[in-house]
Amino acid sequence: MADLDVSDLHGALTDKALNSMNFLNEVAQHYPDAISLAAGRPAEEFYAIEDLHSYLDTFCAYLRDELGYDEAAVRRTVFQYGRTKGIVHRLVARNLLADEGITVDPEALVVTVGCQEAMVLALRALRKDANDVLLAVEPAYVGITGAARLLDLPVLPVAGGNDGIDLDDLIAVVKAAKADGLRPRACYVMPDFANPSGLSLDLETRQRLLDVAAEQDFLLLEDNPYGLFPVEGVDRVPTLKTLDTERRVIYLGSFAKTALPGARVGYVVADQLVAHPDGTTSLLADELSKIKSMVTVNTSAIGQAMIGGKLLQHECSLVAANQRERSTYAANLHALTKGLAARFPDGEVTWNVPSGGFFLVVTVPFVVDDALLAKSAQEYGVLWTPMGHFYDGDAPIHALRLSCSSVTPAELEPALDRLAALIRDQL
Amino acid sequence: MADLDVSDLHGALTDKALNSMNFLNEVAQHYPDAISLAAGRPAEEFYAIEDLHSYLDTFCAYLRDELGYDEAAVRRTVFQYGRTKGIVHRLVARNLLADEGITVDPEALVVTVGCQEAMVLALRALRKDANDVLLAVEPAYVGITGAARLLDLPVLPVAGGNDGIDLDDLIAVVKAAKADGLRPRACYVMPDFANPSGLSLDLETRQRLLDVAAEQDFLLLEDNPYGLFPVEGVDRVPTLKTLDTERRVIYLGSFAKTALPGARVGYVVADQLVAHPDGTTSLLADELSKIKSMVTVNTSAIGQAMIGGKLLQHECSLVAANQRERSTYAANLHALTKGLAARFPDGEVTWNVPSGGFFLVVTVPFVVDDALLAKSAQEYGVLWTPMGHFYDGDAPIHALRLSCSSVTPAELEPALDRLAALIRDQL
Repeated sequence: MADLDVSDLHGALTDKALNSMNFLNEVAQHYPDAISLAAGRPAEEFYAIEDLHSYLDTFCAYLRDELGYDEAAVRRTVFQYGRTKGIVHRLVARNLLADEGITVDPEALVVTVGCQEAMVLALRALRKDANDVLLAVEPAYVGITGAARLLDLPVLPVAGGNDGIDLDDLIAVVKAAKADGLRPRACYVMPDFANPSGLSLDLETRQRLLDVAAEQDFLLLEDNPYGLFPVEGVDRVPTLKTLDTERRVIYLGSFAKTALPGARVGYVVADQLVAHPDGTTSLLADELSKIKSMVTVNTSAIGQAMIGGKLLQHECSLVAANQRERSTYAANLHALTKGLAARFPDGEVTWNVPSGGFFLVVTVPFVVDDALLAKSAQEYGVLWTPMGHFYDGDAPIHALRLSCSSVTPAELEPALDRLAALIRDQL
Repeated sequence: MADLDVSDLHGALTDKALNSMNFLNEVAQHYPDAISLAAGRPAEEFYAIEDLHSYLDTFCAYLRDELGYDEAAVRRTVFQYGRTKGIVHRLVARNLLADEGITVDPEALVVTVGCQEAMVLALRALRKDANDVLLAVEPAYVGITGAARLLDLPVLPVAGGNDGIDLDDLIAVVKAAKADGLRPRACYVMPDFANPSGLSLDLETRQRLLDVAAEQDFLLLEDNPYGLFPVEGVDRVPTLKTLDTERRVIYLGSFAKTALPGARVGYVVADQLVAHPDGTTSLLADELSKIKSMVTVNTSAIGQAMIGGKLLQHECSLVAANQRERSTYAANLHALTKGLAARFPDGEVTWNVPSGGFFLVVTVPFVVDDALLAKSAQEYGVLWTPMGHFYDGDAPIHALRLSCSSVTPAELEPALDRLAALIRDQL
């Protein structure tokens, strides 16, 4: 006999967003022999256990030599409870300056348990009551939707269109929400090589997005896990935070793709000033830190030491540290688009050609759902992600996401053969 | 000019619980030369950086030799994203059997970012709507109160009394809540050497508490960070989970005090069965895992490797691994109570004599508040914790908490001299 009924538990547990992640993981586990064009994990060929030892030693040397810690303080820093906002904040600030041209006070940073916790902190702070809503460019990363569900914060989708965001739709959604008595607090956007669309915002769109946010008075939640991975010959576009002159952007950072996921270290830049009734102001980062102390207390010091060590070994530039990875992703992305062109020359099946990142979207003339993915895994031996998982509603979606990040060159052609067979059998 | 007003952010940010933690941390930072009888952190004298290297290697050897992983799988396990419920679940299950006599299916465990995240997951799942409430034995650990605030879950205090929990008050609170249309979902309790009271529940009280929970149909959230630290000659009492025959207990585990805080690894045992509309059942652990995927994705694999390695090096028994630490805490606790007796022989100031753990409570004939702590830090050079931080209301509290866990024997006598001077000056 059951002890609890799911209908007596928090509603998020039966929500599509939370069950998407679960379903996708389970399919991958059930068909371990299928080639995966689904996983968004980074390439793992360059990882070596010795590097972890080395990162730890490098970070301890930094504590000793640069910060002047004695041995007891070094041990305390990596073994004990520590600063809620983190212990690699100075190094993250150097990294932001080196790789993004963002100048940030290290005190305005909260180091988090991956970017996911950064989202949770920001959304929790911004959700005061039932009138608050989040805007999110759709198709949207399921992690932002899921976090919003957990925090009882409704998400209003904004059309992504072909440019990464449809600013007219954004303005219309905001105005309609306000007319309904709702308060759009922030718009979540991934301006560089977005997951899942692969699209990027051009410079003009970024400037206009900042203008709209200012005019309509909401914040931008900029998530940038893939920005370091443009293909060869493509120039990087400044982040929204780089362009932000009036603290309109909360910047969500991840080291999962640029260093290693197993450290679970991300961060949030929250330099907004918060007014208090006694006339004082605080950094939004300090408010997020209070929330963090009740979610995870602090981010693993050992995980932070790994990221700190890796940053230190590359003069705090992850552009420099990821040259091999960047080439790998670019080569795979090129092979994917070239392979699709060879297999679908007649225009019935189409795809976008992203200028970087991990993902592209294939559009097909039939509905793509979980049942088709299960069939693909079982009968065709290839995994991918139904785009429906990235939309809030239940409207049928005719597209699938392919990932180029964790497939080997040798797997790519057979993977595409299998995918092509599946698609042809549906036509 | 400020960008945001705190009155437009989530109400938890102005709540006492979230600001308590902050205030206490800040006092400690502002007076680094004061001797701390406040910090609840474990002793750090036995920590060595080399141990971290060794734990990592031991864990990798376990993956290779016991689980049969090849080198690529070993690297993937520690570097990549991983199983949401954790990668040291089998070792944690062995630890629970070795140290607590708890037999648990490893699938019923979720490895979390410290015990704090375990609380967040459990409370989030159990809070369906505004009628749900949490019961908590008062004085209560501020982390549970803070987590509940973040999740909009009201906390009803239950009197702790002199036995660790007043069961008559518990029943009265539950009945009154039900009469008000509220639904008490669970009662949070720390049965062993509680923070902050130092009190433990005897075996009979544990049995009766389980009976009350069954009769009144709520769950017990058992938090057990200090159970391994009884003083010499005191027998350990079985945990509620050990005594639990009908899955009434959600067990919250921590490795911060028994291994190292810097790994940020805890866990929750959630073996309850959850019924779904399609007639299937799932483990509550799997529901909590869905929530976890949207809070932190997974617990740092590198942090887990540290805990896994330490467990493996001690045949999965942390009793065995903590013999030195246990002696240290017991000696400090004895020195504290003996030193108080020497300084306050006349009964005007009293204290309890816990049979283990990190904390004791001193009761004084005047109000103990944050202003007095600030004065103590600045003028007397000693830190402790006002007991008011562990009560929900604003009623004046005449007690303070002393911690014996992270003070050295050499610091203890001067710390007590300073505390005694402060107290005498208030009499």
